[in-house]
Amino acid sequence: MRRTDIPADTILIGKKPIMAYATAVMMHYNTGAKKLTLKARGRAISTAVDVAEVVNNRFFQGGLAKNVHLGTEIVGEGQDARNVSTIEIILERTK
Amino acid sequence: MRRTDIPADTILIGKKPIMAYATAVMMHYNTGAKKLTLKARGRAISTAVDVAEVVNNRFFQGGLAKNVHLGTEIVGEGQDARNVSTIEIILERTK
Repeated sequence: MRRTDIPADTILIGKKPIMAYATAVMMHYNTGAKKLTLKARGRAISTAVDVAEVVNNRFFQGGLAKNVHLGTEIVGEGQDARNVSTIEIILERTK
Repeated sequence: MRRTDIPADTILIGKKPIMAYATAVMMHYNTGAKKLTLKARGRAISTAVDVAEVVNNRFFQGGLAKNVHLGTEIVGEGQDARNVSTIEIILERTK
């Protein structure tokens, strides 16, 4: 996915520290948004879960509803093509 | 959690290769069971997602319903206590 294809309410989780993403999440909610999607692939999946948990527990005192979808994407082409697992965590403010 | 506390329909995902867990999952379904829970913490979370995806796509042709719960556990005591993210993936046969 190219960066220009990423919707405004989606944050792609990669190799940055958890708090970098947690800050981005908080900035998003501070605009008045109620909903946000975290997306990650491969090893970054555990980081995405960390971000969701930190934001929910530390900043929202458990006030976020979490909806999780797992999937598989093909990465690379031809001989280099391989499956990689994906996660999509939809976080919605409940208060 | 001590090993003796693990219910029979739960597989704890750790550092083994994905196919080791996928085999354990298939053995469980071969007993006639319809439901299974994968549990993992920290870095093993992405492995748990890999196991769920491999089993669902390769062995069940997408015939498993996935239900995912995220959480946080405290690991260690006193000064060493820290939060660790957890995942629970409930896999149910739909055909």
